[in-house]
Amino acid sequence: MKKLINDPADVVKEALQGVAAAHADRVRVLTEPNVVVRADAPVQGKVGLVSGGGSGHEPMHGGFVGMGMLDAACPGEVFTSPTPDQMLAATKAVDGGAGVLHIVKNYTGDVLNFEMAADLASSEGVEVQAVVINDDVAVQDSLYTAGRRGVGATVLAEKICGAAAEQRRSLAEVADLCRRVNANGRSMGMALTSCTVPAAGKPTFELGASEVEIGIGIHGEPGRERRELAPVHDIVSMLATPIVEDLPYNSGDSVLAFVNSMGGTPLIELYIVYNELNKFLSGRGITITRNLIGPYITSLEMQGCSITLLKLDDELTALWDAPVNTPGLRWGV
Amino acid sequence: MKKLINDPADVVKEALQGVAAAHADRVRVLTEPNVVVRADAPVQGKVGLVSGGGSGHEPMHGGFVGMGMLDAACPGEVFTSPTPDQMLAATKAVDGGAGVLHIVKNYTGDVLNFEMAADLASSEGVEVQAVVINDDVAVQDSLYTAGRRGVGATVLAEKICGAAAEQRRSLAEVADLCRRVNANGRSMGMALTSCTVPAAGKPTFELGASEVEIGIGIHGEPGRERRELAPVHDIVSMLATPIVEDLPYNSGDSVLAFVNSMGGTPLIELYIVYNELNKFLSGRGITITRNLIGPYITSLEMQGCSITLLKLDDELTALWDAPVNTPGLRWGV
Repeated sequence: MKKLINDPADVVKEALQGVAAAHADRVRVLTEPNVVVRADAPVQGKVGLVSGGGSGHEPMHGGFVGMGMLDAACPGEVFTSPTPDQMLAATKAVDGGAGVLHIVKNYTGDVLNFEMAADLASSEGVEVQAVVINDDVAVQDSLYTAGRRGVGATVLAEKICGAAAEQRRSLAEVADLCRRVNANGRSMGMALTSCTVPAAGKPTFELGASEVEIGIGIHGEPGRERRELAPVHDIVSMLATPIVEDLPYNSGDSVLAFVNSMGGTPLIELYIVYNELNKFLSGRGITITRNLIGPYITSLEMQGCSITLLKLDDELTALWDAPVNTPGLRWGV
Repeated sequence: MKKLINDPADVVKEALQGVAAAHADRVRVLTEPNVVVRADAPVQGKVGLVSGGGSGHEPMHGGFVGMGMLDAACPGEVFTSPTPDQMLAATKAVDGGAGVLHIVKNYTGDVLNFEMAADLASSEGVEVQAVVINDDVAVQDSLYTAGRRGVGATVLAEKICGAAAEQRRSLAEVADLCRRVNANGRSMGMALTSCTVPAAGKPTFELGASEVEIGIGIHGEPGRERRELAPVHDIVSMLATPIVEDLPYNSGDSVLAFVNSMGGTPLIELYIVYNELNKFLSGRGITITRNLIGPYITSLEMQGCSITLLKLDDELTALWDAPVNTPGLRWGV
């Protein structure tokens, strides 16, 4: 295992120390339990947004804490659900009196732990709502998941709901918006290579020298098929066709196209993916009016990409464009 | 070779098509020859900033074209110098009457071609100055370079000089500033793995299963030594010690610390590197007052990192903080 780490047991702790040292202007890092909190939390009168999940997907979620996005993130160990006490601590830390929204990716451990944390927070007088993101069209039920997995739409929901919360919309409104993003977002990913969880010390799965996995999960969960590597033109069609047919996305629709690196795929390849996706969608009369291209929801050093589409309307577009100031996404400020 | 590409011969062309499709709000992509130009170029009365080099280092340089940074970038084929006609086209496209600065990484092909382009531009009445960046302390002379290589300080020079040009400083002032960034910036990198140039189809070099290369160049040029993988605490010391001793950086200095991924190293590891670097510098009385952490000057999918330090003063800090709106760096707008 070749990684820029010290002891594998200290990976999350030391990465969080790095986040704390680098971004003290925007976030605080609490320990025991680990929570990344917006520096000025709780913001009085604003709905607090909390997300979280296993580490290894950076910048999601800790890198999205700050003005215009999340109020707190709960980082679990690598590819391991955070604990209810992390989620409870995060919820209490960001409660500014207007309630707290939990944005939960659909993995069974995350869902159960966030439910438990919500119950505990409610019993302490904090109003909590939760929205479960399940945008991955690759498979129904998976290694850690009943139903569809939650992936790229989570990033978009965090940004869009974060902007709505800054406008002081109510908890019910922000939760509705989050459900709307989930309802209008669809994703699918693929892997060229595996990744290695530091504590495991060996690759999560094995792929042959010219083999790829279509529909991979962000923890290496099995996808739809393993097949020979193909030109990216064909790969994009394999990812985008199930996405656009699922909702469906129709001619005349405007979308945000999010082309994501799984961590080890460089930007030059992502732009080729984007080019193919743009042609694919143009051919169906779908127009990309906003985009996000880069490593935002990763799987350690896995090579591969995922595509997320979000059907846009004027309101979602305006919320996407609103200012954001996090270590991982920043504009307008 | 596993890559998200079509024909290896079309990698740069198709990636540029992706850039054009994604970022038409900020850049135009010219073809024959290939140049990425700020959408509103030439900006009248502003010094035009041009950089360029081989592709494969994205987002550098094309991703740094836009308000507050470069006016144009010349992308060569992967790891191949752009041609003088690209540089001439870029120079003419961004000449707003205040002259053009060429920011050139010290690789012999780049330097010679930029010199030729400057001569041609001058003969057409465009005033050109050039600054060669040579911040890499790893080795003196290298595979493609007489003297030191130019690496991470280039990104910082492009940002800082871009801000100065927006303030309508003169060509002489912006060129002086660029030399000042180069004089106060030092870098060193390392690799955990090689990378594969698409047209070559096989890794540029080979490293053993537990071997790393300290002082690697961004095209895989040899560094100082190959050695066994070590804890990142030690790796950071191997990179940072030659950097701080070279200038030298002294107790009481404030620096911008730039922790860069070579392309395939994920953010969670970069933050561990940052944490170690912060401790290393604190121990010497050097304070990090600004930072940049992520993949900004990459070597395709190479795993590894580089560290760049820039000694800051109030002026450089203010220019770093000034608004920028490029696909690769964006804030304040």
